[in-house]
Amino acid sequence: MADLPQTPLLDTVRTPEDLRKLKPAQLRQLADELRQETVSAVGTTGGHLGSGLGVVELTVAIHYIFNTPGDRLIWDVGHQCYPHKILTGRRDRIRTLRQGGGLSGFTKRSESEYDPFGAAHSSTSISAALGFATANKLADTPGKAIAVIGDGAMSAGMAYEAMNNAEAAGNRLVVILNDNDMSIAPPVGGLSAYLARLISSSEYLGLRSLASRITRKFSRRVHKGLGKAEEYTRGMVTGGTLFEELGFYYVGPIDGHNLDHLIPVLENVRDSEQGPILVHVVTTKGKGYAPAEKAADKYHGVQKFDVITGAQAKAPPGPPSYTSVFAKALIAEAERDDTICAITAAMPGGTGVDKFEQKFPDRAFDVGIAEQHAVTFAAGLAAQGMRPFCAIYSTFLQRAYDQVVHDVAIQNLPVRFAIDRAGLVGADGATHAGSFDVTYLATLPNFVVMAAADEAELVHMTHTAAMHDSGPIALRYPRGSGTGVELPETPQRLEIGKGRIVREGKKVAILSLGTRLGEALKAADTLDAKGLSTTVADLRFAKPLDEALIRKLLTTHEVAVTVEEGAVGGLGAHVLTMASDEGLTDAGLRIRTMRLPDLFQDQDKPDKQYDEAGLNADNIVETVLKALRHNDAGVVEEGARA
Amino acid sequence: MADLPQTPLLDTVRTPEDLRKLKPAQLRQLADELRQETVSAVGTTGGHLGSGLGVVELTVAIHYIFNTPGDRLIWDVGHQCYPHKILTGRRDRIRTLRQGGGLSGFTKRSESEYDPFGAAHSSTSISAALGFATANKLADTPGKAIAVIGDGAMSAGMAYEAMNNAEAAGNRLVVILNDNDMSIAPPVGGLSAYLARLISSSEYLGLRSLASRITRKFSRRVHKGLGKAEEYTRGMVTGGTLFEELGFYYVGPIDGHNLDHLIPVLENVRDSEQGPILVHVVTTKGKGYAPAEKAADKYHGVQKFDVITGAQAKAPPGPPSYTSVFAKALIAEAERDDTICAITAAMPGGTGVDKFEQKFPDRAFDVGIAEQHAVTFAAGLAAQGMRPFCAIYSTFLQRAYDQVVHDVAIQNLPVRFAIDRAGLVGADGATHAGSFDVTYLATLPNFVVMAAADEAELVHMTHTAAMHDSGPIALRYPRGSGTGVELPETPQRLEIGKGRIVREGKKVAILSLGTRLGEALKAADTLDAKGLSTTVADLRFAKPLDEALIRKLLTTHEVAVTVEEGAVGGLGAHVLTMASDEGLTDAGLRIRTMRLPDLFQDQDKPDKQYDEAGLNADNIVETVLKALRHNDAGVVEEGARA
Repeated sequence: MADLPQTPLLDTVRTPEDLRKLKPAQLRQLADELRQETVSAVGTTGGHLGSGLGVVELTVAIHYIFNTPGDRLIWDVGHQCYPHKILTGRRDRIRTLRQGGGLSGFTKRSESEYDPFGAAHSSTSISAALGFATANKLADTPGKAIAVIGDGAMSAGMAYEAMNNAEAAGNRLVVILNDNDMSIAPPVGGLSAYLARLISSSEYLGLRSLASRITRKFSRRVHKGLGKAEEYTRGMVTGGTLFEELGFYYVGPIDGHNLDHLIPVLENVRDSEQGPILVHVVTTKGKGYAPAEKAADKYHGVQKFDVITGAQAKAPPGPPSYTSVFAKALIAEAERDDTICAITAAMPGGTGVDKFEQKFPDRAFDVGIAEQHAVTFAAGLAAQGMRPFCAIYSTFLQRAYDQVVHDVAIQNLPVRFAIDRAGLVGADGATHAGSFDVTYLATLPNFVVMAAADEAELVHMTHTAAMHDSGPIALRYPRGSGTGVELPETPQRLEIGKGRIVREGKKVAILSLGTRLGEALKAADTLDAKGLSTTVADLRFAKPLDEALIRKLLTTHEVAVTVEEGAVGGLGAHVLTMASDEGLTDAGLRIRTMRLPDLFQDQDKPDKQYDEAGLNADNIVETVLKALRHNDAGVVEEGARA
Repeated sequence: MADLPQTPLLDTVRTPEDLRKLKPAQLRQLADELRQETVSAVGTTGGHLGSGLGVVELTVAIHYIFNTPGDRLIWDVGHQCYPHKILTGRRDRIRTLRQGGGLSGFTKRSESEYDPFGAAHSSTSISAALGFATANKLADTPGKAIAVIGDGAMSAGMAYEAMNNAEAAGNRLVVILNDNDMSIAPPVGGLSAYLARLISSSEYLGLRSLASRITRKFSRRVHKGLGKAEEYTRGMVTGGTLFEELGFYYVGPIDGHNLDHLIPVLENVRDSEQGPILVHVVTTKGKGYAPAEKAADKYHGVQKFDVITGAQAKAPPGPPSYTSVFAKALIAEAERDDTICAITAAMPGGTGVDKFEQKFPDRAFDVGIAEQHAVTFAAGLAAQGMRPFCAIYSTFLQRAYDQVVHDVAIQNLPVRFAIDRAGLVGADGATHAGSFDVTYLATLPNFVVMAAADEAELVHMTHTAAMHDSGPIALRYPRGSGTGVELPETPQRLEIGKGRIVREGKKVAILSLGTRLGEALKAADTLDAKGLSTTVADLRFAKPLDEALIRKLLTTHEVAVTVEEGAVGGLGAHVLTMASDEGLTDAGLRIRTMRLPDLFQDQDKPDKQYDEAGLNADNIVETVLKALRHNDAGVVEEGARA
């Protein structure tokens, strides 16, 4: 570990209050120290680096000019907030980022009053800021709301919906567009900064307001929030940008690393009586740290690394990731079938669609952060005879739930959902956990829902989904590496709704869905050693259930336990529903369902998360033993029954 | 019933093939007859009228110019498709619209090859059309995709996401913007139609293409789909509209009732080598039928009516609707508490927020068709101390599921969800049914989920939600009229997670959640008469469960049945999960769960839908009797056990 950086000025700044006592001329040094401290901290913890480095000056400038936390600062996504955390009373814990019990890798309300609205999913900040601004307006209290949102996040419909509604907030709302891709940035420099300062000055805004009022008489529905067609066409007359057409004052573009530009512009913005204002700031991801600036991904997300060299810690060698196994399996399907295509919503690397795209550029579609469009686009493709795979993380598929229901399930269209990051996700914490997909998909008519127990199963399930033309089908699989099983040379087409017995026993039945199969097998060994002969089944399908198999397991074993890495309402609920439908509980059925707990689990090492969730082998053993000790009067007996 | 209209020309047109044999000069007469037939049909059935009348000429023109069904025509929402149905082989069934076994009130794939993509929820058409266009492009087969979308639907983020991705489709994609609010339409007439024809001609498009190519060198990421910031700013230079900034060729505005304008413009659009093209068409909702044109809502949705006078059939007098009870209750809360506010997503009348707005204009927010924004905006309001009620239909709340999870539940913010149209909805059919909300909400940590059994309960639950500051809370209630119970003068604050015994018995326990309570009580009477003394509980809460009450009911009765108007994974699943967690099934538990069936139910009269769902009193009685006859060996005995 490198020595801690020397940060004499930063050491005097515990909160933005302290920051605001500095002279403008000191801010450059403060920003430099803040950048060094950020690099040092992420070198220790790993995490998101490039985005934070890109907004060091912006972070300093916003807290310097605005009256946080009274003025509400909302970072979109929140993965760029490490410098913000350092400046807002959390420096002493910054080297606990993303660790169990440590600071979250995103903004989080429970952490600090300087985080008025937590995030992690993209594109929520303008809506939230509008809520803060509107509440202040209604209460007639001072206080602005400042949303900082990246250019990528602007592709989500949600951001557009919010901008479409922003006009009513007036000057209480400031949106800072953090345009952090140098390759697309407009020219920056003295002249444009000058222009930006000019157009953000109060006099200029006054003139603009007049022009806007003149324009407005041509558009009679500006304040309704419904239908903006007249706004769009207004643009043709006034030459305004999209932001102006939506009712914003546009300021920019300005150099987001030049504090001499940022400070006066934000000062003007703060003091403007006009609004809402959109400030277009151009930044460089990874700014100021050479290894990040040089890297293709600008060190978006990194492992622990050496601060001097930038060399990241390598993951120990091991089995391939589920993502890469899926990518390879899908490519094999696409080689066989030219109707196979792949859709990702701004996660080409995370879903493996980048590898697919290298082979089949015409059949890979990155739609940007636009999950709703992704799903209905896939439905359209399917309706015209293609076999689309929508590869979306479990947690992000929530963004497209209505499209899954309305466009896919009701129409029974064969869209394939490859659901990565299903279950617990470790350091990214509650916002990224894929806890609900089995529940929210298996309740839908027409849907087939599969979960892969290992990477070989994932290969079979990818093939099964590719071959399944009669309706929607989903396959879920976890974050991280596979279990190390051998990958099949030829994938099998699984029979829909059929599970498999992995291990035969007599007294105890463990019905596993997906990732916990290994723990179920470990538990079975322990139980066997205790004289409790144990069957383990991998159900494979949460819907349709393998009713024959389940019926047999429930009725021929003394106790049955379902195990899944998902919230209540999923596999266990479906098994219980089937059992009660059939009257299997009437004469007594010793059955327990193990699932994720009814709370949002914070970030931690995966093992610890499973411990907290109670989904490890030991927990399974304990559940079985407790169930067996439980007597019919509802009292747990001292000794085991079996 | 009025006589059927005389429609000699329409009588010769069974499909668009026949239509395309007509001379252009005949189209005016055809449109007039089509309009009369539409009015006549909806007079018989009730349904959506104004929207269909607004697109009569557009419907004729599209089918005349484009090669449907090979060219894919996708009506957004689909409530304007009655004239389209008449022209596409379904005239013989047009007077069965929205009736059980009849035509759907929306487009539907299973009905006709001329409905390539079903709809009912808004703003899906461009995404779907892009799917069709892209599939054709990949297969190198001819065929265009035409989306017809209203100006209101353009406010949804999904439409923006799709437009943001449309450029790659080229001239295979045509989007027709049906701007049907005369009060906001730009001037129309000879000159603008001339201009529209001019700018849609191939020569002009050729010039435009050149300009576009020149512009493009300033924007290096046009084809990436990620981030459009450079596109927005490009608008400043070129003076283009929003559509042009997103890569469309914009044509319009043109008079959507003038076939002499529509036909040549669409012809040019069809033959253009440039694209995608957006055609901006201005229409009048309710056009050509005086009572509709005069009505404030342009006869958006109507009861059966007299074609001559326009007088709509009045609903028989009866109890107030749940919607109006909710509105009144919320107004009472807002009079008491000035932090109460109400949010609707373009459904002010349907949710009762219109009445709230009359009293509290500052605290009512109609955000347009923008459910995602609505929910996160509400979360922002709540985080700043307001008490927001998000009033959204169950089926539309699906659009904001991720916002419910990520912005509300994870942050445990006290947003109140007033979920109207929960359960079956009659004539609107599967797309509008609110079947899944209990499942998709009760699986979330921190959430409280209530269901109102009658309108008095709704008043109590509205108050309970208003007073609940510790986290998110939802109250669901059905479409239509209340049960006629007396409304309380003073609302009670219900204890969270506590149900109530409505009727005491000994042998049978019916655990009802929400609307089926009346049927449960009827069933209880029948069972009592058979000597089966029956308890009926109204659980009120799907989450948290009243565990003490449920435990008692399950363990002191011979059989227990849960009843809910929702899909699998809801109340019944939660009760079963609790029962197995506690080991209540170990010694035998005769329990059944009654819920919506695992299929999407088509439109019908509500009674028939409940029959089909098996959720009436008779079904409850039958379920109880069958459960009691079911012996422990899994065989149903001949006689009842009790």
